[in-house]
Order: sequence, then C-alpha cells, then structure tokens
Amino acid sequence: MDRPSLPKGTRDFGPAVMAKRQFIFRAIRSVFERYGYLPLETPAMENLSTLTGKYGEEGDQLLYKILNSGDYLKDVDPKLLAGKDARQLAPQIAGKGLKYDLTVPFARYVVMNRHEITFPFRRYQIQPVWRADRPQKGRYREFYQCDADVVGTDSLICEAEIILMIQDVFAQLGIEKFTIKINHRGILAGLADVAGAGDKEGTLFVALDKLGKAGEDAVKEELTSRGFTAAALKQLFDVLGTPGSNNEKLEELKNRLGKHRRAATSLDDLEKVFKYLTHFGGSLDCVEFDIALARGLSYYTGCIFEVLINDASVGSVSGGGRYDNLTAVFDSREKSSGVGFSFGVDRLFDAMEELKLFPEETQRSSEVLVCHLDEDCMLFGMKVVQSLRSAGHAAEIYPDVAKLKKQLEYADRRKIPFAVVIGSEEMKSGAMAVKNMKTGEQQMRSLEQLIAQLKPSGKP
Amino acid sequence: MDRPSLPKGTRDFGPAVMAKRQFIFRAIRSVFERYGYLPLETPAMENLSTLTGKYGEEGDQLLYKILNSGDYLKDVDPKLLAGKDARQLAPQIAGKGLKYDLTVPFARYVVMNRHEITFPFRRYQIQPVWRADRPQKGRYREFYQCDADVVGTDSLICEAEIILMIQDVFAQLGIEKFTIKINHRGILAGLADVAGAGDKEGTLFVALDKLGKAGEDAVKEELTSRGFTAAALKQLFDVLGTPGSNNEKLEELKNRLGKHRRAATSLDDLEKVFKYLTHFGGSLDCVEFDIALARGLSYYTGCIFEVLINDASVGSVSGGGRYDNLTAVFDSREKSSGVGFSFGVDRLFDAMEELKLFPEETQRSSEVLVCHLDEDCMLFGMKVVQSLRSAGHAAEIYPDVAKLKKQLEYADRRKIPFAVVIGSEEMKSGAMAVKNMKTGEQQMRSLEQLIAQLKPSGKP
Repeated sequence: MDRPSLPKGTRDFGPAVMAKRQFIFRAIRSVFERYGYLPLETPAMENLSTLTGKYGEEGDQLLYKILNSGDYLKDVDPKLLAGKDARQLAPQIAGKGLKYDLTVPFARYVVMNRHEITFPFRRYQIQPVWRADRPQKGRYREFYQCDADVVGTDSLICEAEIILMIQDVFAQLGIEKFTIKINHRGILAGLADVAGAGDKEGTLFVALDKLGKAGEDAVKEELTSRGFTAAALKQLFDVLGTPGSNNEKLEELKNRLGKHRRAATSLDDLEKVFKYLTHFGGSLDCVEFDIALARGLSYYTGCIFEVLINDASVGSVSGGGRYDNLTAVFDSREKSSGVGFSFGVDRLFDAMEELKLFPEETQRSSEVLVCHLDEDCMLFGMKVVQSLRSAGHAAEIYPDVAKLKKQLEYADRRKIPFAVVIGSEEMKSGAMAVKNMKTGEQQMRSLEQLIAQLKPSGKP
Repeated sequence: MDRPSLPKGTRDFGPAVMAKRQFIFRAIRSVFERYGYLPLETPAMENLSTLTGKYGEEGDQLLYKILNSGDYLKDVDPKLLAGKDARQLAPQIAGKGLKYDLTVPFARYVVMNRHEITFPFRRYQIQPVWRADRPQKGRYREFYQCDADVVGTDSLICEAEIILMIQDVFAQLGIEKFTIKINHRGILAGLADVAGAGDKEGTLFVALDKLGKAGEDAVKEELTSRGFTAAALKQLFDVLGTPGSNNEKLEELKNRLGKHRRAATSLDDLEKVFKYLTHFGGSLDCVEFDIALARGLSYYTGCIFEVLINDASVGSVSGGGRYDNLTAVFDSREKSSGVGFSFGVDRLFDAMEELKLFPEETQRSSEVLVCHLDEDCMLFGMKVVQSLRSAGHAAEIYPDVAKLKKQLEYADRRKIPFAVVIGSEEMKSGAMAVKNMKTGEQQMRSLEQLIAQLKPSGKP
C-alpha cells in the first residue's frame, strides 16, 4: 500500500489552522452582515460554457475540467482521438469544470434569478475556487475567496462602505497599520487619452499593474513596445508621480485633466467617496489616492482598491473595484453596475502569523478536561462534564480509565486550560481539584465556582 | 448568448436558503465544539488512488474525475485511444477526483499526520462531497456532509456522547419528537452465526438495511437467494421481532444469544451505553434498541445508529457507527478504533421546513434601513447607520436619493423590520421617525432609544 498523499497545491486544514482561519472568516462574515450583505453559495461545479472565455485565454487553460460520467468516449469522433489533440478533445469529454473565481458564478446567479432578486443586491460569498496554476509559495490550486459585491446601484456610498468594511475587519482582527489604496479607472483612461494613447487604455492598465513588482523601467519598456511614444510616456509618468496629500493630488489632477470629461467626473467620484467617508465618521488616515494603481482585471470601470498591511511582507490582502456591467457576459440586455471587493484569506493568515495577531484562545478548543481516578469517578465525572456543557462551555471527559498522568498529558497536548480531577474525596465532598494547566496551580472548587470561574461562553 | 444554467444535481443557495442552512450548521457546529470536537477541512480534490476502491465498485463509478492539466493525451498509448474504452482510459488522463465522502479523507489525514495528532482525536468536518449519481428528489450530485468522529479509543463513552449530541442539536433546532435507533453489528453477526450463516454476515447487513423500504418478504427472498436456509431465516426473524422495552429486549437476547461470545459482549456494550447515558443525565426516552437496524456501510463493527424525526417524512437525518479499523485501507500497520456519525443537512432542512421550525429571524438580514428625503438627509443618515453598526447591529442606508416609497418597498421586500426616515425635521430635532415595517406603526425615537429598542446583537 502506498503512503497516501495530497494533490499538489492542495492542503488539509487541521484543527490548529482551522481555528485561526475561522477567526478570520468570522470577522469578515460578521462585518459583511453588519453592512447588510447577504450570504450566497454557488456549486463548485459549473458548466464549462459558463466559465470558458471569461478569464482570458490563459484563464481558460487554468480551468479544472471534470470528465463526463459514464461512457464519455461513446460519441467522440475516432479521428479526433487519433489526432491526440488534448485541447480539441477536452470539450467533447468534459462538460463541467470547477469554478475559477466567485465573480462569474455570482453574475450567472444574478442573471438566472433577476426576477426574484431585490436590487440593489448585496451578496457575500466565502468559498473555495480552483486554478490549475503552478503551485508555489503562497499560491495554491485550491483556495478560498471572500467576496462582497453590490449590484444594481452606481451609488458611491457603496465605495465608501467598502473602505469602512475593510477598516472594521482589520479592527476586529487587530491589524492596526494598513493602507487602502484607491484610484479610478476613468482617471487612468483620461490620462491615456490626453497622452494620445486613448485606444490603448487596456494595455496601460495591464502594464501599470506590474509597476510594484517589475519597476518603472520595465513598465516603460513594455509600454514603448506596445506603441506608447516617448512624449506620451513622459506626460504619463509625470502625472503618475504627482506628489502631495490626497486633496493636493485631486487638485493637481483637476488642473491637468479637468478638461477631459471622463477624467473630470472620475475625480469628482473620488472626491465624493472621501466626503461620504467623512460623513460616515470613517477615517481617511489609512486611505491613499494612488494615481498609479491600476488592478489587473479587465472589467473594472470605476473606483479601484487595493489594501496593504504596512508591516507585513505578504503583498495586497484585499482589492476590488466598480464595474459597469457585470452580467453582460451572460445577458447583453441588461446593464447592472456594481462594485465589489475581496479578501485574500491565505495572505491575511500569513500576515497575522507574521505580526503575531492571533489571540491565544484560538489555539484551544475545550475549556475543561474532566479526569478521573477509577471507573466510579469516571461515572461521577459524566455529570460534571455535562453540567459544564449545559452552561455553554466546551468540555471533555477523558474517555478511558487511565493513569492520571496520561490524562493530564492529553490536556496539555490539546492545550485545554483547566483539568478537573475527580477522586473518591471529590465525589464525597463535591469540591473538585481544578488544575490550571498553564501555571500548574491547583484549587478546590465546587461545580458552581468552576462555572463562574470560566469565561462567559460566547457560543450560542 | 445562451441563457446560463446550473449542472444537473447542483444548486445555488441564495440568501433566504443560506440563512436557514446557516442556522442548522451553527447548531451542529456549536454542539460538536461543546463536546470537544475539533474542526478539520480537507481539499475537494483528492488523488484518485486515495478514493478508488474504498466505496465498492458502484462507488468507483460515481467518482467525479478531473482531467489532468496540460497535454493530458501526450503519454497515452494510441492503441488505448483507438479502443475507445472509457474505463481503461480514465486513469491515464485523470489522476484526481472530487471527494465522495468525508470519512476516507479523514482516514487519509489521520494516517498522514499520525505523529502530530493527540489521540483520542475528535474531529468534525462540514464540507461538500460529490457523487455522479442520478439526480432525483432529495438526491444531489453536490451536497454537504456534517461528520463527527473520534478515533484512538474504544470507550463507549463516545457512543453515549453521540446520543447526547444528537439530543442537543435537536433541542437547539427545536425538533422535539425523534427516535435514535441503536443496534450493534456484533449482535447481528452473532445472530447470523447462531442461525448457521456466520460466513454471510455481510450479506445479512446489506439485506437488512433494505427492510424499511423493501419490506420483510423481499428481504427474506434476497436472503434465501443468497443461501440462507428456511430454518435460519425463521430463527433470524424470530429474534429480530423480539418485542418489549429496550431492557426487555436486552434480557431476551441475552437468553437467546448469551452463549455466543461476540453477541454477549455486544449486548454488554449496549447496556453500558445506556448506563453511561443515564450517568450523563441524558434521556433514554428517545432511544430505541432496534435489533433489525443494520446500516449499509461495510466498515462498521460495533454500535450503529440511525435517527428519525417522528412527524417528518424525510427518512433518516443522522446515522453512524463504530469501526474497528478506519485507517487500515491506507496503513495496515496500525489499528485505530473509532466511532462517528453524520447529519444529513438536506433532510434536516426539509424536515424543519415541513414542521415549520425555522425561527422568523433567519428570514431577514439587516435590522434597520435608513431612508432619507434628499441628499442632505442622506449625508445625515450616514452617521445614523454607522452608529447602529458600531452598536453591533446590521443596518443599511438606502444608497441612492430616491422616492421614499421606493426605499420602503426595498425594506419590505428585503424583510428588514425597521425603517428610519430622515427628513429635515429629523435632522433638526435629532428624533427620527422609526417605522415598524410589519405593523406599519411609526414612532419618534432618538438614536439611543432606537438602539435600546433593537434586540441585543448576538453577533461578535
């Protein structure tokens, strides 16, 4: 028998990691819900016709395809098989695939249910997605995304609320220093236009998105090779490098691009987002208007976001933006503007580990282990453990008659903070020896005293 | 553009259904955790070598297989392709599959991590699984399982705690009338032995499992065709039909099977489970010793369970049992006895709908919608909505300047219970018009009064 293994790029999440992940998920979910976002889950499997063509040619190659069940070769032309063309054969033998992100399934859901949905529709979705990418540090083939989107309104309140939600999630996670970068696709588009490259805004977005990693020279080189003139580049990088505070940048850009209609309304949009944020009572300290922020995805048309944790080396942990027409890929009849963003759980996890932000409580599960010295004490202990559970506390009774040392070792290894030891004396008096596993301290306690001593249970 | 659709046998869970499902998941998760079970998640994708051969030949056919990425035909023998044998080709072009249940991945996890795990190891797992089954009412191709297992101990405390957990989950869900059927594989095995069919106990389990659906005659017919003599069948069904209370049945079976070693220890086991249950303070009213209960899965060796909701027509909603050696399929060196059980979420959901047990609160999300009469009122409303959120309440502000009627309609359709209307008077006085959307009643409230009026937020 071979030793079993995991597919490359996939992971088990054991209890210790799960506890920390749930800490993150709980924070995100509770903030999403506080802002009126509703939960949605879509299947892992989608028809390949739903997925194909939505993520560019490279994305299509990264889709996991599921072999049709039954005799999947029955109707396949033998010539096609003889040709051994994997790409041509695939659609014949695989009709379904694993979802690649949460956005396309959300758009499909909106199109399929548009008559039942109340718009504006705010939904959040926390589910795994799959990509047949080359696995490397921090990049997996199966990983969770946490998305929140609102469709059916172009109100900039939504943009301001996204910034508030990011602030709230970070507050709940204990992340204090972070930067929410914001920009507007319309500013970049206007800039390209003014620089005489208005037909190449898509190229500009893709190239600028690499600025952080590849550096200015590489980006300039790429843009030159794509037909940007030296004069255009100069003008472009001149504006991108505008110094100053958010307001100073806004003023300067109004001077430079104010006559360009789309750039002007985009600058107004940003200003409005800042104004709304102030009215909400939110902080602008962590918000940075970054003119060079571009984001990779092609469907963004309005405000775009990207979030960095200042003292962590994990890259951006959240990002998003507004799109004019999410559902157009499925139904050209309707136009549904929306804005969404997403948390990268794996990177948030790594950042929180790096900054040692996970509270110690996430590390344990049961609060009490009931230990016993013989069969009778074990029977007595059953009442004790059940009383603790009824009071809402997670508790265990050691399930076998065993040496006390072994039972305490179990408590220790499981990081259970308190051990109750039941002996014949304890059964007579009703006072139990309660051992603090961290300090080794031991005290006699009645059941009521023990319950009072435990932290109030947050569990329902 | 084709109207998009979902793969057969899969479902979207929209907000209303999600709220109800989360209500069920929360109850199950909180009870699992109160009993010291720890969360585990394993990937959707497993190597096919991990899955194949674990679920019988039929199960192998129902595994979803994932096409290898890249040029999956490169190394395939052209002769194999020419043969068009789908079954032979599959392992060549698909190395991974979607998990079929949560038990085999759990066993794989235990084998791969046995040096880090503290035994006895209690884990719960709530995740989707996939089966290429024919979809029909109540049977899906992608569905959630909720498993809890403890491995590394043969203590019958675990069996008693499973019964307690089922009682606790049902109490939390509001399910009052239910029957937890319990039996022991060793009793059935002893019975087969005594009836002279000791070599056919597997056949007996499979046939008896159909008793409820197919009826006694059909089961007798099947057993006859499998070589059970008429005398054996008479003896068998005589014992299976033993009347009386749990204790009366136990006594009667001790008389009839007491000399058979395995049957006798199995009867002792059951008696001990009942005794432990009493010591835990649990109820035995809903527990029924059902001698004919067999369960389908081959790996059970000890106590087995099955749970029915008395007034619902959905079949069994939970089941499980003890196995002597879960990990043997991966590692024959080690023997890890364990016991586990599982909730069927889809059936629980249907039963709760049938019995109208979902509380009304699951139906809404935000507690308050802040409405406004113009742009200035909207700006003022931002402070209001943010104060509500800071107090822990889910609240929304209508994101566009719109007619009040439209805003109230949104609150109504979203089942938001309270609408706050901000007009110029409200901005001056600080007292807001709070409309109860159910009764239509409207009252003037300060922000503090409104917050005091809302239910205390259970959200963290």
